[in-house]
Amino acid sequence: MKNINNSKLRIIPLGGLEQIGMNITAFEFEDSIIVADCGLSFPEDDMLGIDLVIPDITYLKENIDKVKGFVITHGHEDHIGALPYVIREINVPIYATKLTMGIIENKFAEHNLLKTTKRKVVKHGQSINLGMFRIEFIKTNHSIADAAALAIYSPAGIVVHTGDFKVDYTPVFGDAIDLQRFAEIGKKGVLALMCDSTNAERPGFTMSERTVGKTFDNIFAEHRNTRIIIATFASNVDRVQQIINSAYKYGRKVVVEGRSMVSIISTAAELGYLNIPDYTLIDIEQMKNYPDEQMVLITTGSQGESMAALSRMASDMHRKVTIKPNDTVIFSSNPIPGNEKAVSKVINELSAKGADVIFQDAHVSGHACQEEIKLIYSLVHPKYAIPVHGEYRHLKAQAALAQSLGIEKENIFILRSGDVLELDETSAKVSGQVQTGAILVDGLGVGDVGNIVLRDRQHLAQDGIVIVVLTLEKFSNQVLSGPDIVSRGFVYVRESEDMMEEARRVVEEALENCADKHVTDWGKIKTTIRDELNSYIWKKTKRNPMILPIIMEV
Amino acid sequence: MKNINNSKLRIIPLGGLEQIGMNITAFEFEDSIIVADCGLSFPEDDMLGIDLVIPDITYLKENIDKVKGFVITHGHEDHIGALPYVIREINVPIYATKLTMGIIENKFAEHNLLKTTKRKVVKHGQSINLGMFRIEFIKTNHSIADAAALAIYSPAGIVVHTGDFKVDYTPVFGDAIDLQRFAEIGKKGVLALMCDSTNAERPGFTMSERTVGKTFDNIFAEHRNTRIIIATFASNVDRVQQIINSAYKYGRKVVVEGRSMVSIISTAAELGYLNIPDYTLIDIEQMKNYPDEQMVLITTGSQGESMAALSRMASDMHRKVTIKPNDTVIFSSNPIPGNEKAVSKVINELSAKGADVIFQDAHVSGHACQEEIKLIYSLVHPKYAIPVHGEYRHLKAQAALAQSLGIEKENIFILRSGDVLELDETSAKVSGQVQTGAILVDGLGVGDVGNIVLRDRQHLAQDGIVIVVLTLEKFSNQVLSGPDIVSRGFVYVRESEDMMEEARRVVEEALENCADKHVTDWGKIKTTIRDELNSYIWKKTKRNPMILPIIMEV
Repeated sequence: MKNINNSKLRIIPLGGLEQIGMNITAFEFEDSIIVADCGLSFPEDDMLGIDLVIPDITYLKENIDKVKGFVITHGHEDHIGALPYVIREINVPIYATKLTMGIIENKFAEHNLLKTTKRKVVKHGQSINLGMFRIEFIKTNHSIADAAALAIYSPAGIVVHTGDFKVDYTPVFGDAIDLQRFAEIGKKGVLALMCDSTNAERPGFTMSERTVGKTFDNIFAEHRNTRIIIATFASNVDRVQQIINSAYKYGRKVVVEGRSMVSIISTAAELGYLNIPDYTLIDIEQMKNYPDEQMVLITTGSQGESMAALSRMASDMHRKVTIKPNDTVIFSSNPIPGNEKAVSKVINELSAKGADVIFQDAHVSGHACQEEIKLIYSLVHPKYAIPVHGEYRHLKAQAALAQSLGIEKENIFILRSGDVLELDETSAKVSGQVQTGAILVDGLGVGDVGNIVLRDRQHLAQDGIVIVVLTLEKFSNQVLSGPDIVSRGFVYVRESEDMMEEARRVVEEALENCADKHVTDWGKIKTTIRDELNSYIWKKTKRNPMILPIIMEV
Repeated sequence: MKNINNSKLRIIPLGGLEQIGMNITAFEFEDSIIVADCGLSFPEDDMLGIDLVIPDITYLKENIDKVKGFVITHGHEDHIGALPYVIREINVPIYATKLTMGIIENKFAEHNLLKTTKRKVVKHGQSINLGMFRIEFIKTNHSIADAAALAIYSPAGIVVHTGDFKVDYTPVFGDAIDLQRFAEIGKKGVLALMCDSTNAERPGFTMSERTVGKTFDNIFAEHRNTRIIIATFASNVDRVQQIINSAYKYGRKVVVEGRSMVSIISTAAELGYLNIPDYTLIDIEQMKNYPDEQMVLITTGSQGESMAALSRMASDMHRKVTIKPNDTVIFSSNPIPGNEKAVSKVINELSAKGADVIFQDAHVSGHACQEEIKLIYSLVHPKYAIPVHGEYRHLKAQAALAQSLGIEKENIFILRSGDVLELDETSAKVSGQVQTGAILVDGLGVGDVGNIVLRDRQHLAQDGIVIVVLTLEKFSNQVLSGPDIVSRGFVYVRESEDMMEEARRVVEEALENCADKHVTDWGKIKTTIRDELNSYIWKKTKRNPMILPIIMEV
């Protein structure tokens, strides 16, 4: 590796703070760029009709000659979800651990991308060389197996990026986080630490995943005579393992339900991340052959997602499972902020059907709390702190922790999307901005829904649309038919016939006015119609529907 | 009071479980009906464009001769909010305690209803006679002053209705809950207890409001050099009192901001529920005359409501207050389920402006936890338990508490809106159903937005609208102009010109097809256009906009 003294490392988040979940960070040194993660975000409440949000990667496209590849920390949507879209635009190799890659490959198979992309599985402890960078994958713990932190070696110094992580001394599968390696690298001298902030407001230490297994055992012991249904995150393979363990111990068969759950469990089992005793897993069709007290159902829908299996069971829309009085339903999850109401709705529906709903102690977080964050800082001992992963309040909470550990305030950076942080041993500063943004995916369309379309959808959602159509004679501008008024989403027309009739007269008057004043320009006629109708409807209803005049010419 | 042996008391919730917040319960005995509370509910997420939801009171209108009046437990929106709408349809007297009535009168003044309605202020401990009923108002504690439980005396027995309540042994203003009176009535023999379930899932005891005062004192002591901004519920007069107390103690002036906050504080001060030292309250215009460390701002917006004062400050939209680095902002509230994301957004915006945001220990609930609920049951010792106020899961949690206290399962009733519970000393059962429902208020319209309009709004919100207009010649059905295609909220047309042009051709083909098959019926032509265009657009985009063909005739 050549070492040019005046070269600096550039760290550029291309998403993240403005769109939580869209985790993607470029590291640039001279002619080399590597990209950590490539996540997607789910639409905000005002992004009506949008399915997904992915990052604008203009900067990477413009520097495609430099881009050496993606290094992926783990297999959650907010770290890999945008890959199928992004890789079509910049086809560079992808590096990840085994399970992470398995999940990526599931996605790529759906998108028909398996044959056209380069992928390489990396082991924990292993390093890869990409241009001016060397990247080492370090074992961590998280709510999905095979998570990795990245040590990014550049001529300007080492950056440690934790990805999402927690410290689990007694993980369900595999090893505990490699704290010794964090310490070793820390000893070498670390330029910057980019550390998970999700739980930075929470004091203490996140409990081991294994404690949830104890809870399952207790619940299974107390509910020997009922069917047990457990909702959890599809990707939490260790959680599923513990449910299977309890089921086996208490002589129950396990059914897995929900598309994403079935997909990840089969991938995890194939790759050896899940240990299922023979004859434990049965098909949902076989369920009728076993009494309730010998069944456990593991299902999606722990976030109250309306189309997920549990929600469909709760609302009697599931074709194969009907909730019965005395069913024990366990939420092995916490609602993600924004989902509280949807989760409560499902709990209410389940309760109303007589099910016993349990949501206490059956979950632990996958993210480090304050004491774990302090531990990593103390081992890594970075010069600069760059809190990542979380809302502004969380990044700020980590910044406060970093300060409390002796890092100078001016050495802590909360970066916004597109910020270019230039750094080396002597200095660090935000030196500029690159283009970033949120690309909206709606159905097959990527980026064809923008602000104007969204504003229209919000307007339509609020008060509906009133369409005024009339046919004018060419040249004379004489009204040949109409004005006809058609509305959708405005009022129930049968009960408002008088108002719609009066609205027609308002438009007719507006047209007569235009004629009297010899206004012949269609644009002006339309504006007059819109203004008059708007003020009539507002006066009458205090509502503001979209008004759309259409003039036909014969 | 005459006592006819075979007459039963009927308890009919006209809202509540299906629309949380819409609290309104009819009590009927022979020729008499009284109604406890008359609340409104806020729209669910899928009620696009709706402002408020009020109860369908058809049953009361049909029995108007029997209806003697409304008895109101306290002045929160979910207990009084629908009064201005309902009272226009059934103008019966309203009974409430002083502050509750003051808040009702504020509302009625806005709706021009003051002159036309009968209202009577009732004191705690006082009873009123309404037809066959006597109603006693019993002092309770809640997050608004002057809350009352109701003891409803009927020939069939006594019903105790707690309203929303908590047990506060050391309230900020006025007396503690009148536990002795609950015990005395319990001793007489109570037929049924209708008890607040909001916190029935929470173990323990709700802390006294006074503990929040201590927290304020501590925060004021620790932040002597910064401006303090506190967001809380406008109606929590005791909370405001405690902020004023701390401000006075630490030599700060108080500014009140937000329309509802100003309105309730002035009502409470006028009626003597708030004790403000001279020269403490200043106008927002005077704020510039005082240094930051001598200011406290009490504001609305603790739920992240986008138009409330705090949200406007956080997003730089407030005309008089700009958030500065080092401002201390306290959330003296918990997010109501569903508001978590909005609150977090405001916290992030405040943090990004450098404010220090505090949201721990600066709030207590206004509702009874499990131990308080058990206390009330033990004092009142009812024959029947009818859990009220809360979602199904909460009512069920209280039912479990009641059972644990020895009430037979068959004597516990979770009522749905419209259920008619007939009861006396010998038996209780749901004997029928009356009409109930949610009436949607949108602008000035009450009930003119129904399911069809809502479904259209949801459809429009999801994928927008594509309008196809054409002019046909009368009799010949020849196309004179069009088809023109206009879309809103679908795709950004300039970037999708090819698709829109192809869509036009699809419609033209559909028209040609109709002509070839001699289809002349407009309904069939429209259906053909809709189907063809729909399948073209779905194939092309996997979206499903509303398609609206309009045919003009010349």
